[in-house]
Amino acid sequence: MAPAGGPGAKRGILERLESGEVVVGDGSFLITLEKRGYVKAGLWTPEAVVEQPDAVRQLHMEFLRAGSNVMQTFTFSASEDNMESKYFEHAEEAMWAVEVLKELGKPVAATMCIGPDGDMHGVPPGECAVKLVKAGAAIVGVNCRFGPSTSLKTMKLMKEGLQAAGLKAHLMVQSLGFHTPDCGRGGFVDLPEYPFGLEPRVATRWDIQKYAREAYRLGVRYIGGCCGFEPYHIRAIAEELAPERGFLPPASEKHGSWGSGLDMHTKPWIRARARKEYWENLRIASGRPYNPSMSKPDAWGVTKGTAELMQQKEATTEQQLRELFEKQKFKSAQ
Amino acid sequence: MAPAGGPGAKRGILERLESGEVVVGDGSFLITLEKRGYVKAGLWTPEAVVEQPDAVRQLHMEFLRAGSNVMQTFTFSASEDNMESKYFEHAEEAMWAVEVLKELGKPVAATMCIGPDGDMHGVPPGECAVKLVKAGAAIVGVNCRFGPSTSLKTMKLMKEGLQAAGLKAHLMVQSLGFHTPDCGRGGFVDLPEYPFGLEPRVATRWDIQKYAREAYRLGVRYIGGCCGFEPYHIRAIAEELAPERGFLPPASEKHGSWGSGLDMHTKPWIRARARKEYWENLRIASGRPYNPSMSKPDAWGVTKGTAELMQQKEATTEQQLRELFEKQKFKSAQ
Amino acid sequence: MAPAGGPGAKRGILERLESGEVVVGDGSFLITLEKRGYVKAGLWTPEAVVEQPDAVRQLHMEFLRAGSNVMQTFTFSASEDNMESKYFEHAEEAMWAVEVLKELGKPVAATMCIGPDGDMHGVPPGECAVKLVKAGAAIVGVNCRFGPSTSLKTMKLMKEGLQAAGLKAHLMVQSLGFHTPDCGRGGFVDLPEYPFGLEPRVATRWDIQKYAREAYRLGVRYIGGCCGFEPYHIRAIAEELAPERGFLPPASEKHGSWGSGLDMHTKPWIRARARKEYWENLRIASGRPYNPSMSKPDAWGVTKGTAELMQQKEATTEQQLRELFEKQKFKSAQ
Amino acid sequence: MAPAGGPGAKRGILERLESGEVVVGDGSFLITLEKRGYVKAGLWTPEAVVEQPDAVRQLHMEFLRAGSNVMQTFTFSASEDNMESKYFEHAEEAMWAVEVLKELGKPVAATMCIGPDGDMHGVPPGECAVKLVKAGAAIVGVNCRFGPSTSLKTMKLMKEGLQAAGLKAHLMVQSLGFHTPDCGRGGFVDLPEYPFGLEPRVATRWDIQKYAREAYRLGVRYIGGCCGFEPYHIRAIAEELAPERGFLPPASEKHGSWGSGLDMHTKPWIRARARKEYWENLRIASGRPYNPSMSKPDAWGVTKGTAELMQQKEATTEQQLRELFEKQKFKSAQ
Repeated sequence: MAPAGGPGAKRGILERLESGEVVVGDGSFLITLEKRGYVKAGLWTPEAVVEQPDAVRQLHMEFLRAGSNVMQTFTFSASEDNMESKYFEHAEEAMWAVEVLKELGKPVAATMCIGPDGDMHGVPPGECAVKLVKAGAAIVGVNCRFGPSTSLKTMKLMKEGLQAAGLKAHLMVQSLGFHTPDCGRGGFVDLPEYPFGLEPRVATRWDIQKYAREAYRLGVRYIGGCCGFEPYHIRAIAEELAPERGFLPPASEKHGSWGSGLDMHTKPWIRARARKEYWENLRIASGRPYNPSMSKPDAWGVTKGTAELMQQKEATTEQQLRELFEKQKFKSAQ
Repeated sequence: MAPAGGPGAKRGILERLESGEVVVGDGSFLITLEKRGYVKAGLWTPEAVVEQPDAVRQLHMEFLRAGSNVMQTFTFSASEDNMESKYFEHAEEAMWAVEVLKELGKPVAATMCIGPDGDMHGVPPGECAVKLVKAGAAIVGVNCRFGPSTSLKTMKLMKEGLQAAGLKAHLMVQSLGFHTPDCGRGGFVDLPEYPFGLEPRVATRWDIQKYAREAYRLGVRYIGGCCGFEPYHIRAIAEELAPERGFLPPASEKHGSWGSGLDMHTKPWIRARARKEYWENLRIASGRPYNPSMSKPDAWGVTKGTAELMQQKEATTEQQLRELFEKQKFKSAQ
Repeated sequence: MAPAGGPGAKRGILERLESGEVVVGDGSFLITLEKRGYVKAGLWTPEAVVEQPDAVRQLHMEFLRAGSNVMQTFTFSASEDNMESKYFEHAEEAMWAVEVLKELGKPVAATMCIGPDGDMHGVPPGECAVKLVKAGAAIVGVNCRFGPSTSLKTMKLMKEGLQAAGLKAHLMVQSLGFHTPDCGRGGFVDLPEYPFGLEPRVATRWDIQKYAREAYRLGVRYIGGCCGFEPYHIRAIAEELAPERGFLPPASEKHGSWGSGLDMHTKPWIRARARKEYWENLRIASGRPYNPSMSKPDAWGVTKGTAELMQQKEATTEQQLRELFEKQKFKSAQ
Repeated sequence: MAPAGGPGAKRGILERLESGEVVVGDGSFLITLEKRGYVKAGLWTPEAVVEQPDAVRQLHMEFLRAGSNVMQTFTFSASEDNMESKYFEHAEEAMWAVEVLKELGKPVAATMCIGPDGDMHGVPPGECAVKLVKAGAAIVGVNCRFGPSTSLKTMKLMKEGLQAAGLKAHLMVQSLGFHTPDCGRGGFVDLPEYPFGLEPRVATRWDIQKYAREAYRLGVRYIGGCCGFEPYHIRAIAEELAPERGFLPPASEKHGSWGSGLDMHTKPWIRARARKEYWENLRIASGRPYNPSMSKPDAWGVTKGTAELMQQKEATTEQQLRELFEKQKFKSAQ
């Protein structure tokens, strides 16, 4: 393999995709920095860039070291009107944003926060992809809201939609680092565990290697992550696709493939874990026998535009909370 | 509450415990830095201190910001003879180390990697504690190897052992950040998921608040964590015990208690999660319906001193791995 | 309520459905008699009718006592050509059978062993229903192969298909007594647990009350069960729909509604279980923490007509079993 | 093997045990007849003997056919003073009953409803066994309240207690047909699932073969079942121990060992299930991904003699239920 770092480090993403390269994205900023103590859950605002630049820089360094080819600006929610945000829930909004950016002469990557059931208005993934490409997007895909398997199902539907319409585009996937087999259309925010009880859903590095391989087989060439994607998950993408790309990421100096670092352990049963077959087949336990394996998403049947979904100017009052809580109790009893 | 940081920041740990303070420990270095890309799993050596001082410093900063009162030297495995290591598996070894340190005139904290079933020779926790205190330890407790609930069970037994013997000592607990209800005497390293599939076992911040509260009730006054304890877990200890200590940690500026940051969310069902009762009672799901909730620990009946447990000078050969794998297959069929 | 037994006991099923009655079907014969020792698993032949008429009669009595309005002839697989069998996997076969029976001047009920994904050729449920009604069936529905929730999903699709085609028919559902959320198109026989490890999937009486209520809401008026449906499951249907039907089944003399028989228990926490709200909301545990909650169905990609699916004249040889086992191992590792 | 039925069919149980035979007990009457529609849950009275003798006779026939050597009188709770009852919760009561029976000149089998933690007064199993043998019992053991694994743990402790005291007795085990790893001292009645949600805990035939083998290895020679033990479970005991006993039960004509009846199935993956290795290693799924695998037993800290545990003369009132329910809510929130 070529020395870590890889060819073409200075070229733009679109250029690299055009030349057939695999581009490795980066991972989670807000959720990861929340756990490190620099972001407030609920607000999810990126003031850490200003307040704690060292902490942000450190995380950027870790993703680069893990093999990421890009440095996405850490500005989710940073602008008032959300224009630059890459998070679209509705095909119409996404399409409109693409058109505006295209007029500015920029090549556009447009990803949506949607699952196999389509966007929040029920437009299916294939149709969304077609709309975005027709509006001018050169790269289309999904990010956030859904876990690795679900995101790849959506990508498959996008790809099929484009093929059926005779259109071409580069494909991009940035899944959550959490497993979400039980999500509804609203994605992981509707799971009762969001955002402070998602721990047991965190993907292992082996889950992510599988995700990278399947994405590659599907023809996706920009492969990264979103909320919950830690540096070692990005490294897992880079390691899985090292044969195709011809090089390993810098951080692989600290990671033997498939746990090979365990083969000098004093306990023989731990040495026996230093092999691909072991980690690929292991069904890891949750250590939580009193808990279920799936949850029912919350979703109280409210739709966009109703009073309940308005941005709150003030924090929920005690009275409002009591009402909400009653609704929930009623719901959970159904 | 008093401004963050708290009183007595310059005094020694023993002095602080004597004066009745609660000391908040720090958390996981090796396992956390492995995920960030700076430590090699299996070897678990702390060369990052030299190679990547910024990454190590950043993690120290996060723990301090989360409320830790201490900065433990990051030197697990760093010395050849393991003398300074705080990790003891046998009461005899621990006792001997305490005696040596005591002769050097130092006040001693001695913690053991043991669970309720006692040390690797089967000496029960109460007896271990008595031996350590008689040898001269001023602080006794457990760290690593077992999760929060299990570690507290052990602490209870230690406390009862000391009481029965009419002895006094400060108590210290540094649990794993992983749930391990299914561990045998060897602790989490024997779980099939160690070290690359522990994700679903990671404790939530609410689990850790409960752990801090129970430890406090038990009389433990040095409360920290070990492998798997991230900065937000340490913050959970500091927040839970803020009423007793009189101040919050710096990082709490980024964390409303019990998820209060969610009370301005646009979706009413997410606003309804901004309350203690919600997070305390939630049984979070694993998102892994094809997986079990508990595992059978590996442990092939070998005992200390047998050939199989010798430190390997060279990596396991393919032939050795095949033999180990066969043993394991046989075992899992039982 | 009217005395048990109910009105119209002598009329035919079609006649009863026409008059707006709810007909309660019966349940499982082969699988239940296997557990009682009178049927051989794998062969599933009904020779017990001749060999052990008392055992068969007893089970018929139990279903009648539980509220069943019918006595289905226990002849699954009993004829060489399977003509009378109500188990169809393909819409074409079912349609042909309906046409033959119709020529004989009989009113016909045609049910298929299919799930929401359609029959084994992929014909969707709505289309199947339309074909059957056009061929002359007066009653259409599903039986066997899938559990309560899945069977109702299929019924919903059948109903929508008929509505879209402007057709009318009586609806009939005879679900398994096992939960099968993880089934593929082949149904429960492809689950690794079939037929000797299905115990943890058995529905509770409360699951079946819910099933009966939902079926009723959907417009289904012939509601019964198939494999795994024990007498108390049939009683649960009859009890749930007692308000609509106006009478309780005979066996309800031995069953207070919603566990009311518990309200004289000596332990207060058991008395507290004598209420609807308790049983409806309880998430019952499996008592199997080392097991998963879902399985991957077997299905080796073979299709009808291939050599592997031929009826075996002789039992599988050891050599064949070894080959099959190897395939399976390979599959499970994927 | 000898023809089914076996030698010595007319001799008494003690005589048979003395001669070294393995005696196979019978199984569940009340819980099984409740599901068949002849017993009322909560009261659990055996009036079916009078009201529905055919149904009771049929179940007796099934157990005999499955290989049971005995026909226990179906009189649990049938006498006012509970004298003949084999269900003891306290060593003192059991001991006293044994003494009375011994004075009547009868050889006595005394089994207790206890788990590894001892009887309801906390007397450990070894001590209980010693008391019973000293009082005159020729056979001691456990029945009901706990599942197969737990019951065998208790038997092991009883055996060790007797050995330590230099006493001898025949050992007898009659476990539940339900798995109860999560039970407290009160046994399965305290599980929230008792008695109408125990389905997912039902043992498979393979679980029971394992139980029979382990009981035999432990030296237990009277092996049967209690609540939840269906005829096919009894057959599993008889089949597992057929090599030692020299004959198979009558019902084995309908059951090839280890699923061998599947080897002529049309689907190759089902044929592949016709082998011991398959069923022994399969981790069967619950089909209930929204449910946990273990439950917290109810137990409100009340002790014998308190008002709350008095037998109720009348059914619980609505007001009482509300109070109980409130207590429970409070408890579950802890």
